[in-house]
Amino acid sequence: MPESTWNTQGEAKRQSVLNLIPDKWRLKDPVPPAAELRDVTGNYIRQFLTERETEITETDAVDIVAQTSTGNWTAVEVIEAFCHRAALAHQLVNCLHEIFFDAAIENAKQQDEYYAKHKAPIGPLHGLPVSLKDTFHVKGVETTMGYIGWINTFEGNRNDPRSGQEESELVRELRVLGAVLYCKTSVPSTLMAGETVNNIIGYTWNPKNRLLSSGGSSGGEGALIALRGSPVGFGTDIGGSVRIPAGFNSLYGIKPSAGRIPYQGAPNSMDGQSSILSVIGPIAPSARSLALLFKAVLAQEPWLHDPLAFELPWRDQIVEDTKVLIDKAKAGSSALAFGVMKHDGLGRIHPPIARGLKIVEQTLRRLGHRVIEWKPPSHAKGAELLGQIFQMDGGADLKYHLGLSGEPKPAQVIVNTEGNEMTAYAIAALNVAKREYQKQYMDYWNSTAAITGTGRPVDAFFCPAAPHAAVIPKEFYYVAYTGIINLLDYTAVAVPVTFADKKIDVKSVNVLGDDTEHVQWDYDAETYDGAPVCLQLVGRRFQEEKMLTLAEHLGEEIAQDAK
Amino acid sequence: MPESTWNTQGEAKRQSVLNLIPDKWRLKDPVPPAAELRDVTGNYIRQFLTERETEITETDAVDIVAQTSTGNWTAVEVIEAFCHRAALAHQLVNCLHEIFFDAAIENAKQQDEYYAKHKAPIGPLHGLPVSLKDTFHVKGVETTMGYIGWINTFEGNRNDPRSGQEESELVRELRVLGAVLYCKTSVPSTLMAGETVNNIIGYTWNPKNRLLSSGGSSGGEGALIALRGSPVGFGTDIGGSVRIPAGFNSLYGIKPSAGRIPYQGAPNSMDGQSSILSVIGPIAPSARSLALLFKAVLAQEPWLHDPLAFELPWRDQIVEDTKVLIDKAKAGSSALAFGVMKHDGLGRIHPPIARGLKIVEQTLRRLGHRVIEWKPPSHAKGAELLGQIFQMDGGADLKYHLGLSGEPKPAQVIVNTEGNEMTAYAIAALNVAKREYQKQYMDYWNSTAAITGTGRPVDAFFCPAAPHAAVIPKEFYYVAYTGIINLLDYTAVAVPVTFADKKIDVKSVNVLGDDTEHVQWDYDAETYDGAPVCLQLVGRRFQEEKMLTLAEHLGEEIAQDAK
Repeated sequence: MPESTWNTQGEAKRQSVLNLIPDKWRLKDPVPPAAELRDVTGNYIRQFLTERETEITETDAVDIVAQTSTGNWTAVEVIEAFCHRAALAHQLVNCLHEIFFDAAIENAKQQDEYYAKHKAPIGPLHGLPVSLKDTFHVKGVETTMGYIGWINTFEGNRNDPRSGQEESELVRELRVLGAVLYCKTSVPSTLMAGETVNNIIGYTWNPKNRLLSSGGSSGGEGALIALRGSPVGFGTDIGGSVRIPAGFNSLYGIKPSAGRIPYQGAPNSMDGQSSILSVIGPIAPSARSLALLFKAVLAQEPWLHDPLAFELPWRDQIVEDTKVLIDKAKAGSSALAFGVMKHDGLGRIHPPIARGLKIVEQTLRRLGHRVIEWKPPSHAKGAELLGQIFQMDGGADLKYHLGLSGEPKPAQVIVNTEGNEMTAYAIAALNVAKREYQKQYMDYWNSTAAITGTGRPVDAFFCPAAPHAAVIPKEFYYVAYTGIINLLDYTAVAVPVTFADKKIDVKSVNVLGDDTEHVQWDYDAETYDGAPVCLQLVGRRFQEEKMLTLAEHLGEEIAQDAK
Repeated sequence: MPESTWNTQGEAKRQSVLNLIPDKWRLKDPVPPAAELRDVTGNYIRQFLTERETEITETDAVDIVAQTSTGNWTAVEVIEAFCHRAALAHQLVNCLHEIFFDAAIENAKQQDEYYAKHKAPIGPLHGLPVSLKDTFHVKGVETTMGYIGWINTFEGNRNDPRSGQEESELVRELRVLGAVLYCKTSVPSTLMAGETVNNIIGYTWNPKNRLLSSGGSSGGEGALIALRGSPVGFGTDIGGSVRIPAGFNSLYGIKPSAGRIPYQGAPNSMDGQSSILSVIGPIAPSARSLALLFKAVLAQEPWLHDPLAFELPWRDQIVEDTKVLIDKAKAGSSALAFGVMKHDGLGRIHPPIARGLKIVEQTLRRLGHRVIEWKPPSHAKGAELLGQIFQMDGGADLKYHLGLSGEPKPAQVIVNTEGNEMTAYAIAALNVAKREYQKQYMDYWNSTAAITGTGRPVDAFFCPAAPHAAVIPKEFYYVAYTGIINLLDYTAVAVPVTFADKKIDVKSVNVLGDDTEHVQWDYDAETYDGAPVCLQLVGRRFQEEKMLTLAEHLGEEIAQDAK
């Protein structure tokens, strides 16, 4: 397809989304350029909202549900406030792919009627607005996943009767739980990028610093939730795509182990590649919001509806056990131990990240936790395996979907679409090498029992989620900090730590002792100023209950120390 | 390698195993030919044993542990009895690859000393002899997996320092639990066969009818345990390799879902193929023996040592819940419902299998359980996917390992070693097709809630494990009855039902109503006479606790009705 055609199609789609924003919610005046006004969160966006809308939209998911499920707030007023704020967010940073506010308000009305009649909520998420990355099917709504070639199709197939008729399993469950769905958020075409850019909506900017990226691939979620246009949303993560945008937007986001949150019926890139499975996880401003959603979804028994989901209900016992350890630590006994990995020997970290690591280590020690240096098996080896897996089909799947329209591949995509396909025998050898790496890492983890002082291996470890804070456009290319966690199928939570500060995070300071060269790379203190800094809290496989409990506890303490 | 060389190597290895049998345990007189004496179980083998040895070896695992862990029986007398009987079994049907009786007796002595000192067992399997398929590494013992090219190597690699030094994770755990390991059992070279034959030990015969196969690929386990040369052993199953030899030998055997029993460190065929994972499961004369071993292994928390194992402890609650349903059914309420699939439309079943299905259906109805006809999504489609997955690498892995010595491929191997390798893009599409098939099957299972009368979907379903009873050599070629369960990753237990009887199971009888042609195929009533007949009890994914509880309950009732 010639450029004029795909370009026109993209432009028409982009405009059709904007057209769905009611007049009353459109910005009348132009937004100042990013160079003049980096940060559009907080007071900037609040100026367009009523006090009541601000109150509602700045309430976290747990407290929203407390209001809606007791009839204090109606589902309609809640969803209207979020629709308004989401519309503003999109106009500020380009974060939406699909808008279905009318259907959402209709849905909320029915919920209010249900509540009026039964004096009881529909489910544990009654009236809670939930945003979705544009990698889920919602009935009556298109899914483009950022591909021009998917416009007016079902996953690229024209005249497919499933078009607009399907709902992904998670979407079905969210409706049963009482969630109100109202928008789908932007992704990079191919999904294989740490920034969010495509030929339909363009670039999704970081609301805290519009010179920077909102991260990717769930970048629309990150940007929307940072602006409180959504209290909680679902992204997907095969190499960091939940954690990167969560972290780049000062939010919490969990990448669970594969098989906990149902992926059934959700479109994907390179679907069927089974060496590393993409997973779904929520993103929100508070860790407890993630736990609320996680627990609610598991109560729907997704393993009865998704053949790749595991029969592993939410384990309250693990939450309780973890709280006991936290309380013991508070009382002065070293009950919890953490590893801290300052860098992986490859991805040279910037000063703000180095400072974030110091803050976290200081918090851990202040709380009386044991801290050990995390010296795992070679991350270089893990990065090599990760690269081979992402490149397994030589980029054939991505090339096919870009080729449907002839649109160009965004520069940020980390997969080479002109590579060679691997064959079965080589793939099997790669899977064995991956398993052996997992085993080495597991053995290392077990071995820390000898040095933690708790009698057990570390409970979790902290490490960077990226070498940098929310990144300068086109400068995200090192994905191994997050990707290795996917290779290992571990559970990880992005935890907000601080913000880059040009006055403190000076380029020439040797923040890592003798590792000066690791922080002298492409760091630009001026541009990064104000960028959210996050770290990953990494737990063993299937330890979502424990990691969310620790993230809530530690996140609050870290926030205090970062002030 | 010229025939003379591989043949000589195989013969030398075969002889070296025989040489490990002490003189006192060697058969002095020739065994009558199979045509004269089909059945060497029971009284035939007992003639070579003392009364005490017979008593010990005909006790099931649960009762053995009850004796050894209270000091009534010593570990040494138990292991000596089983070593003796295993030695006899090997001389009768060719079922052993490795013998390490001396190490086992030494191990048992240490256990007895431990017991004498502590007045307590080492673990829940204290003093229990456990046999292992020759797909596990045991320190000081070779693993050939039936390949000539693996003799004097580590998995085919010469001068590998791991040779004789490694123990598979399951083996390590069994030792911690107190099991006594003493032999490894025969497999078909490549493992991809429903009979057991290789160029080292030759053919493993069925002890109940030595004209027939012991099944495969865990055929050595099946034959050894049928002769009570072992109370319980572990096999592996990627297409039926636990269930087929269990069923062909009138034993119970469970194929769990992938990830419950640790596979870490166990050699395999086509290792790294990850579309269908091979799984490990125990085989024994009683279902409760399987539960004993299963529960014991899970208590070792294999997920902390095997990156592919799941954190899913043994769930006593499911056992209890299932027993409540069984009791309710006994009390007259229809609390349990079963599907029965008489044939899959492809694998034409023989009269003994058709009769087995009738017996089971009759038992289910007698016990007051609901029975529905099982009409799942096309098994033809499932069989097609299964075949593509087994053929994924074009047989390259098997060809490589056979090629190490130049030995020929046994005729029974179901994989074509001269096929074409699939590429990554096609493999991904195959994985998607497999997942869609799993989803259809899952939806069908859920849909039965509307017709069971219990308000729930069926609890399990019964179907053949093969078209025939223990098979005539070279006549096993239809693996889809069991293989589709691997494709689905369901839990299945082989349940013994009856024995082929030439007087009842007559070729011309139309046992399946209008499906006469399904039973007229290659059935030979005379040869099959006396062959064990089994069925599969199939449960949902990860329902091992429930399936073992049902298998124990139903197996006993079926045995009564089959008399």
